[in-house]
Amino acid sequence: MNRFLDLGDFPREQVKDLLGLAARLQQTPQPQALAGKVLGLLFLNPSLRTLASFQSAMMRLGGTAVVITPGQGTWQMETRSGAIMNGAAAEHVREAVPVLASYCDAIGIRMFAEGRNLAADLAETGFRMMADLCDKPLVNMESAMGHPCQALADWHTMDELRVPERGKFVLSWANHPRALPLAVPSSTVHMAAMRGMDVVVLRPEGFALPEPIMEKARQAAKASGGSVRETDNRAEALDGAHVIYAKEWGSPQHYGDDEADKRLREYLSDWCVKESWFRAADPGCHFMHCLPVRRNVAVADEVLDGPRSVVIREAFNRMVVQMAVLYRLLRG
Amino acid sequence: MNRFLDLGDFPREQVKDLLGLAARLQQTPQPQALAGKVLGLLFLNPSLRTLASFQSAMMRLGGTAVVITPGQGTWQMETRSGAIMNGAAAEHVREAVPVLASYCDAIGIRMFAEGRNLAADLAETGFRMMADLCDKPLVNMESAMGHPCQALADWHTMDELRVPERGKFVLSWANHPRALPLAVPSSTVHMAAMRGMDVVVLRPEGFALPEPIMEKARQAAKASGGSVRETDNRAEALDGAHVIYAKEWGSPQHYGDDEADKRLREYLSDWCVKESWFRAADPGCHFMHCLPVRRNVAVADEVLDGPRSVVIREAFNRMVVQMAVLYRLLRG
Amino acid sequence: MNRFLDLGDFPREQVKDLLGLAARLQQTPQPQALAGKVLGLLFLNPSLRTLASFQSAMMRLGGTAVVITPGQGTWQMETRSGAIMNGAAAEHVREAVPVLASYCDAIGIRMFAEGRNLAADLAETGFRMMADLCDKPLVNMESAMGHPCQALADWHTMDELRVPERGKFVLSWANHPRALPLAVPSSTVHMAAMRGMDVVVLRPEGFALPEPIMEKARQAAKASGGSVRETDNRAEALDGAHVIYAKEWGSPQHYGDDEADKRLREYLSDWCVKESWFRAADPGCHFMHCLPVRRNVAVADEVLDGPRSVVIREAFNRMVVQMAVLYRLLRG
Repeated sequence: MNRFLDLGDFPREQVKDLLGLAARLQQTPQPQALAGKVLGLLFLNPSLRTLASFQSAMMRLGGTAVVITPGQGTWQMETRSGAIMNGAAAEHVREAVPVLASYCDAIGIRMFAEGRNLAADLAETGFRMMADLCDKPLVNMESAMGHPCQALADWHTMDELRVPERGKFVLSWANHPRALPLAVPSSTVHMAAMRGMDVVVLRPEGFALPEPIMEKARQAAKASGGSVRETDNRAEALDGAHVIYAKEWGSPQHYGDDEADKRLREYLSDWCVKESWFRAADPGCHFMHCLPVRRNVAVADEVLDGPRSVVIREAFNRMVVQMAVLYRLLRG
Repeated sequence: MNRFLDLGDFPREQVKDLLGLAARLQQTPQPQALAGKVLGLLFLNPSLRTLASFQSAMMRLGGTAVVITPGQGTWQMETRSGAIMNGAAAEHVREAVPVLASYCDAIGIRMFAEGRNLAADLAETGFRMMADLCDKPLVNMESAMGHPCQALADWHTMDELRVPERGKFVLSWANHPRALPLAVPSSTVHMAAMRGMDVVVLRPEGFALPEPIMEKARQAAKASGGSVRETDNRAEALDGAHVIYAKEWGSPQHYGDDEADKRLREYLSDWCVKESWFRAADPGCHFMHCLPVRRNVAVADEVLDGPRSVVIREAFNRMVVQMAVLYRLLRG
Repeated sequence: MNRFLDLGDFPREQVKDLLGLAARLQQTPQPQALAGKVLGLLFLNPSLRTLASFQSAMMRLGGTAVVITPGQGTWQMETRSGAIMNGAAAEHVREAVPVLASYCDAIGIRMFAEGRNLAADLAETGFRMMADLCDKPLVNMESAMGHPCQALADWHTMDELRVPERGKFVLSWANHPRALPLAVPSSTVHMAAMRGMDVVVLRPEGFALPEPIMEKARQAAKASGGSVRETDNRAEALDGAHVIYAKEWGSPQHYGDDEADKRLREYLSDWCVKESWFRAADPGCHFMHCLPVRRNVAVADEVLDGPRSVVIREAFNRMVVQMAVLYRLLRG
């Protein structure tokens, strides 16, 4: 394994093998496995879990990490090809990425969607350009359409909690003050479908996931025996759910048009997950969210602080699965 | 020892035992004592000494550290309970603290006073909430009313310099462009009283320390055989002093009212410690300050650059005593 | 070796010995050479290569690093002697530097030219003051007039590429949106002269390097058998060049006068290095630049992305030579 960019790049068995390695590393620590190895972490966007969990994962395997955050002690970076660089950005990623890679044994890159052109973001134009510049093992720490470390951690969390592989997985849209990227919803439906679950995307009008995201998830479901569909009928969606996974995202219909998106969500303040949403769910239904979460906008305190919530475990499992990813990338 | 939040939580003998451990670790380094351990450092406020000394303390014991600074590459954080999070803060500390703790073997948190409500800050409402969220060994890296690592370092510094345990310790108010928190004066009078010293708080009208701070110090003095009093008579206070410890703080009388505080300090520009302040002091009198210090506002160059100043040693001893604290928290 | 501040502080043989050590450490890693050692990195200015390469160099030798960036989680710093500190800066470097040094086994400091007074910057008044405050092994991570780690890396790169020691080295001025410091041009001409090369400084009217910089380079050339001269005749300068090294710098004639400098460079947009510049150069001529570089302002894409460019190798060699510098400072 030389790159960890998308769960879809791997057959299901290889993902399960990675989860097995994660469990073994958790049970039997290998504090010298990556001794002498240096991981470079390039953050073009903010982070808490990714920032802390990649460092601690590396350290727990005996390695070390270097963090680079453009604009925070480091030059601002240009990403456009052919740019005449007479603005604020002092350095182009065409230099920055290979230079950082040259100092390190592996690299992680976080680069969110640009959020203007849906087709470009769906094609991962930004992250692909970055990946092409890097000749070392590479991890996607969240791109325009993918957050594979989060997906892997969520899969691991469901396995730990013995959520049935054929269980009902509801990804519900949730409100937020502004349009957020599609990386987590995209990765999450694909992951749950790949795990073999019956996936329902619950979202209001105007927030249907783009067809390429749904189609990718359907392909994964076909291979695993699961299913994928979407609805705006909350009662029907939540009925019998084993997992309610909340996520905020911007309207794909009004992609890049913040004003139109905002008008749409003005009437959607009841898309804040409450305890009542779990009434018809499976009695053991879990609440999941990738964090960070806007309390009482996307999810009510009563849910986050209640017994159904497994959000802290999901976050902890980021470290757990990333140890496995780093181990595979750096030790094979 | 599972938490290091306040010297007042420990009997005097346990503090002296910690100082003994600090001295031993300084003499006989234990470069592998904390191998494989990860310390998480959460800074809700700026830092230099704390930031650098905790990292180097951990590294000198073979461990590693992860630094999280909200707003600097990490999401801004909400701290209010029940908040409807539709503002700038993307993450609540109710998630951030347990998540960070889950990646680490111990956590340090810096969270200054909010500076609006004196009673709330005296009750440490902010830091207590953070501490309640953390199920790992925890260090107070400066809260509203406490800076125990600084207090411990200052105690160690006085021991090194053979300042008499029954000596005269003068905590003098010093000027500053704006109102600063009460954490260091509070911790300092308590520490000096606990050490058994005759403590005099020298301050202008309007800057008397709040009664709960004085009462806590008096209780410590009662147990140790020391004493605590306050005055605005500079000549009398400085007479025979073994230590003059300067510190800036805001007017408790006008707590949270920056304008009123500012008017008060307009007439207090002579509260800048000068060489002349030491004329009637003990010949071996030392000058102490926790840093950072505003030169020629709070303390004159002649004092900071002169032979009485031990401010660099105090800062160095932050690392020394924190090695002992981390050792106890992580090795018992 | 206790300080690495300027290549000019060392005889040529000692520099070559350092390059030899760099090559040996690259061939035969010594992952425990600096185990237990802590390097403090103080950045008063932004960085990418220096920030990442010093950390990874230290880690690859088994040591660790602490990064301090005033204004980024750390107090802003005052540097002026005798200042009455009632402004934004909360801490003076007179405290900050010795304190940081006390936590570490060696220190690196980056402090660019102030850019107002040429004589003061030529005299390195700022960096000298910082160096005087530090009683630990010290590395210049770029001062007003020097960037010795870059110079050493560039020397190493030319050795690797077998650029003739007597070859023609052209340092060419290049355009930039604003006046940049003289540290790299100053260090570069001196390094190339010290290596024994025929150095030509190619620059437009108004951008002649200050006489003390040229004189220092001439002295180095005298000792090594090289030569140093300057010209504004591009065709003559580039003819037969073995290296074209591009660098942006402000007009020494209008030092500190940004408006005058800007007017001057309005007519200099053709000082952007293009492939055509290499027509009369030696067939094996390499293109060098220290990075970061403004693409299509200072250097055209066609050059940076073409086979002549060795800028990524130069950046990689920062780590390589810094391992040797740290080894010598901390192990002798």
